[in-house]
Amino acid sequence: MGVVLPIQDRPADSEASLTDLVGLVAGGMERVNAMILSRTGSDVTMIPEVANHLIASGGKRLRPILTLATAQLCGYDANRDGDVKLAASVEFMHTATLLHDDVVDESDMRRGRVAARIKWGNQASVLVGDFLLGQAFKMMVEVGSLRALDILSSAAAVIAEGEVMQLTAAKNIETREDEYLAVIRAKTAELFAAACEVGPVLAGRPDAEVAACRDYGMNLGIAFQLIDDALDYGGTSASLGKNVGDDFREGKITLPVVLSVRRGSEEERAFWRRCLERGEIDEAAGDLETARATMRRHRALEDTIARAHHYGDLARRSLDIFPASPMRDALLQAVEFSIARAH
Amino acid sequence: MGVVLPIQDRPADSEASLTDLVGLVAGGMERVNAMILSRTGSDVTMIPEVANHLIASGGKRLRPILTLATAQLCGYDANRDGDVKLAASVEFMHTATLLHDDVVDESDMRRGRVAARIKWGNQASVLVGDFLLGQAFKMMVEVGSLRALDILSSAAAVIAEGEVMQLTAAKNIETREDEYLAVIRAKTAELFAAACEVGPVLAGRPDAEVAACRDYGMNLGIAFQLIDDALDYGGTSASLGKNVGDDFREGKITLPVVLSVRRGSEEERAFWRRCLERGEIDEAAGDLETARATMRRHRALEDTIARAHHYGDLARRSLDIFPASPMRDALLQAVEFSIARAH
Repeated sequence: MGVVLPIQDRPADSEASLTDLVGLVAGGMERVNAMILSRTGSDVTMIPEVANHLIASGGKRLRPILTLATAQLCGYDANRDGDVKLAASVEFMHTATLLHDDVVDESDMRRGRVAARIKWGNQASVLVGDFLLGQAFKMMVEVGSLRALDILSSAAAVIAEGEVMQLTAAKNIETREDEYLAVIRAKTAELFAAACEVGPVLAGRPDAEVAACRDYGMNLGIAFQLIDDALDYGGTSASLGKNVGDDFREGKITLPVVLSVRRGSEEERAFWRRCLERGEIDEAAGDLETARATMRRHRALEDTIARAHHYGDLARRSLDIFPASPMRDALLQAVEFSIARAH
Repeated sequence: MGVVLPIQDRPADSEASLTDLVGLVAGGMERVNAMILSRTGSDVTMIPEVANHLIASGGKRLRPILTLATAQLCGYDANRDGDVKLAASVEFMHTATLLHDDVVDESDMRRGRVAARIKWGNQASVLVGDFLLGQAFKMMVEVGSLRALDILSSAAAVIAEGEVMQLTAAKNIETREDEYLAVIRAKTAELFAAACEVGPVLAGRPDAEVAACRDYGMNLGIAFQLIDDALDYGGTSASLGKNVGDDFREGKITLPVVLSVRRGSEEERAFWRRCLERGEIDEAAGDLETARATMRRHRALEDTIARAHHYGDLARRSLDIFPASPMRDALLQAVEFSIARAH
C-alpha cells in the first residue's frame, strides 16, 4: 500500500530503472561477486554462513555498482582489478554496517529475511561484521592506492560517527531538520560518496572529476535515504526489504517525523513523545495508522520526497562536467530510479 | 588470593618488571597518548566519553609500547612519527576489540571499571568500537606504509576470525588443546605479533628481523593470554582488572578447563558440562570453588603456567639475532613480567 504522490513538473521517473547501469557494469560485477564469495571464505564455518546469509540475500549492490560505474566513466583500464577490489570492499563495509546496525536497532528483519542476529545471535553479528571490515581493508591495501585507502577509511570513521549521532538523537522528537540531515549524510551518504570518489581516483583523473563524482554520490545517498525514510511510513515491506513502521517501532527520528512534529499541535506532539520517546506504542489501538494519518495531514511524506528530488537534482547536475556517454546517462537514470521507489 | 606456584629451574622472574621498557619508550608514549586523545575527539560527545572511559582507565598499553620498542630496537628515526601513529592505531584496534568483546561476552566489568556497555548500552559499545577502528585505519594510511597497512589490516581480520572461532568453541568442553591454542593465537597473539612486526617494517629492516620481531610478539602474546586464563581461576580481581571467575561464568573454555576435563573423571566432566555448557552455575553452592579445587587436583593451573613459560622462552630466543642493547634487555624482561603476573 504505497503512497502514490503526484509530483509536478518532474520527469516521469516512475519509468526509470537501473537496467542500463547494471548492464554496463555486468562484467565487472561478476568479478566483484566472485571476489566477495572468495573473501568471505574462512575455516571458521560460521563466518561464511553469517556473511552469505546477508550478502546472498540479493541487495541491489548499488554501492559497488557505483564504484565500477564511476571508474568506467573516468576511463579506468577494464583489464585491471583495482575497481573490482574496491567495489567488493565497499560492499563489505556496507554489510558490516548492516550487521552492526541490526544489533544496535535490535531488528528482526533485514533485506526481507530474518536478521542474522536472530539466527546466530548478537555476538556473531558483531564479530562477523568486524571480520568483513578487516577483509575490506585488506583488499583496499592490495589495490595499493593510498588516496583510495584514505577516502574509504575516513568514510568508515564518519559512518560510525553518524550512527552514534543517530543514537544520541534517537528518542528526541525535538531533533531539528539540520541535525537529521547531518546524521544521514554521515551514516548513509558518506559511503555512497566514497564509493563514487574512488572511481576517478583509481583512474588518476583530475581533482574536479574526483569532486564531481563525490558530489554525485553524496547527493544520491541523501536522496536515497530520504526515500527510505518516507517508505518506512508509506511503502510496502516488499519495496523496503524490512517491515513497514520499523523506524516508528524503534523510535527513530526521521524527516517525516521531524516535519510532522514541527507542524503539529500540542496534542500531536504528546502522541509522538509517547510513541517515539517513551516507546509506548499500541499497534492494536492503531498507533502506526495514527502516525501515518498525521503525516498525511501535514504533507510530511510529500515534502520528504520533494527534498529527495532536490538532492537528486544536485546529484544529476554534478555530472555535467563529464561529456555525454551511455555511462553518464545510466548514472543519471540511477538517480531517478532511487527516487521513483517512492511511487 | 593468588596461586603461588614454585616453578623449578626458572629465573626469579617475580622480580621482573616493565620499568625498563616503559622508561625507554617514555618520550614516544607521551606522543602516543596525545595522539590517542586527539583522535578520539568528535563533535558527537558520546564518542570521546565512551572511548576515554576505557582508554583513560589505564591499561598498561603494552601493545603500543611494543610498537615503539621494536621500532627503536631496529633504529627507526626518533624524529619521525610513523611509530607513534602506528602505536596509537594498535591501541585503538585493541580498544575496539575490548568494546566489542564486552558486548559479545555480556561483561559487566573491564579494566577494573564498569564496562562501557553497562554505562552507555551495547549500541554505543559497538559503534564507538567501529569509530575507533576507522580512526585506526586513517592513522595507518597517514603513515603511508602499505606493508604496515597490510600487516595491521590482516591482523584485524584474523582477530575477528579468532573471536568467532571462540564463539563456536564456547560451551563445548570437548574443545582440544590445539583448538584452544588456535583461538588465542588469533584473538590475542596476532595483535601482539602485528604490533611488533610493524616496528622493523617502518625502520626498513631485512625480512629476518621483521620475522624475529613478529615471532617475539606472537609468542609473548600466547604466554600473556595463558597467564590471563590461569589468573581467571587463581588470581585476584586487582591483578586481572576484571572479576575472578568471569571465564567460568561466561562458559569460556580456556586451557585450565581443557586440561582439567581431559584429566578428569566422568563425574567431573558432568560438573564441567553442567557449569560451562549448560550455564547452570550455583556460586552460593560453591561451584567456582569446586572448579578451582578440581584444577588444583589436576595441576591444571601449574601446567597452563608451564606452557606460558615455554612460549616465553620462544619469545626470548627470537630476539637472539639482535645485538645486546638496553632495549633488547628490556624486551626480554617484558616476557618475564608477563609471566610473573601469575606469581
